[in-house]
Amino acid sequence: MPKVVFSYFPVKALGESGRLLLAYGGQDFEDNRVTPDKWPEYKPSTPFGQMPVLEIDGKKYTQSVAIARYLGRKYGLVGADAEQDFEIDQNVDFINDIRAKAATVHYEADEALKKKKHEDFSKNFYPVLLGKLNDIVEKNNGHIALGKLTWGDFVFAGMYDYLKAMLASDDIDQRYPALKRVAEHVYALPQLQAYLAKAPKTEI
Amino acid sequence: MPKVVFSYFPVKALGESGRLLLAYGGQDFEDNRVTPDKWPEYKPSTPFGQMPVLEIDGKKYTQSVAIARYLGRKYGLVGADAEQDFEIDQNVDFINDIRAKAATVHYEADEALKKKKHEDFSKNFYPVLLGKLNDIVEKNNGHIALGKLTWGDFVFAGMYDYLKAMLASDDIDQRYPALKRVAEHVYALPQLQAYLAKAPKTEI
Ligand SMILES: N[C@@H](CCC(=O)N[C@@H](CS)C(=O)NCC(=O)O)C(=O)O
Ligand SMILES: N[C@@H](CCC(=O)N[C@@H](CS)C(=O)NCC(=O)O)C(=O)O
Repeated sequence: MPKVVFSYFPVKALGESGRLLLAYGGQDFEDNRVTPDKWPEYKPSTPFGQMPVLEIDGKKYTQSVAIARYLGRKYGLVGADAEQDFEIDQNVDFINDIRAKAATVHYEADEALKKKKHEDFSKNFYPVLLGKLNDIVEKNNGHIALGKLTWGDFVFAGMYDYLKAMLASDDIDQRYPALKRVAEHVYALPQLQAYLAKAPKTEI
Repeated sequence: MPKVVFSYFPVKALGESGRLLLAYGGQDFEDNRVTPDKWPEYKPSTPFGQMPVLEIDGKKYTQSVAIARYLGRKYGLVGADAEQDFEIDQNVDFINDIRAKAATVHYEADEALKKKKHEDFSKNFYPVLLGKLNDIVEKNNGHIALGKLTWGDFVFAGMYDYLKAMLASDDIDQRYPALKRVAEHVYALPQLQAYLAKAPKTEI
């Protein structure tokens, strides 16, 4: 087996999809959780100055979605043709648009502005976007695309707690029940249980 | 040939990659440029409430990068294996991170804050990010990945004027000369000349 190291901050967020996919693929890997105090030292060695970074026999791979697509292809979690792969890609990009939108609020430094933005987005954007995503998942039988397990489910499941924290709303599970199902489905996969049992529990 | 309609605002930005790829593939298509006044009426018919939207025999495809990857696969502009496809994906996601970063400045409504952000980013982020991208393109012989023409080049070339507008700096071409080469290379492709001759010229 190749030597595999997966490096990310000690959270799930954008890194968990990679960890879950490696576990799903039965790939032993070093789960390198870089704490913020160690990050400045580690940063210059990463391809783009960010994590996650996957290393396979010394070769570095970065960008969380590209990594997930790549591992998904390795482990048979892709579509049967270009049309099907498109559907996964499209829906994953939609999830990322929602995440990016919520991030502009979450990372707003000015507290008054943050509050205003949160109210605006919670009224004008989140219900429509999350409602659409919930519909997609319902149509796909509890999955992100193709009505079955794909690497897109791992992307969503891995970042779900982080997404909810950024949406800063405590009724996402209740209002959009299909979303929770994607995460539950992934976290119940037998292939992941050994990893999940030893992985540190994190809020996001 | 299937009936193909490509819908986007009357700018290049996130839509031009799709138009260029269709032209490259020799695919006749209706170049449906939706003006802002028509958009509210058109919006509800789009999958995610946004453009670009590609329609092939009535089936709708959205998300600009997913569309570009899909068309690239159709027209042979992909890698030879999963490793190579990963490299395109990774570098395209990096480009999109730069775009998203610049967008947070460009679309900042508060003028004073915008100025402050622009100064901050121009000092602390853009030089490193654009420098890295310039290095990547140099290493890849004037391309985004794999040292040859891929769909990633179309993504970059299509949004280059838009990206420069968002970076709000008039010396990008001079400081990062490799970037311009990607765009020049794409816009010089013989397959695109008929489309380019008839496409409306736009600033971004
Ligand atoms: N588009 C990238 C974004 C990566 C990213 O934003 N990484 C953050 C952590 S979530 C990071 O490394 N931040 C530290 C830094 O930029 O110095 C991906 O999906 O991998
Ligand atoms: N991630 C999407 C973003 C699409 C997007 O932001 N579209 C904008 C135009 S560039 C839009 O349709 N805006 C109108 C609206 O949201 O109502 C993509 O790459 O296609």
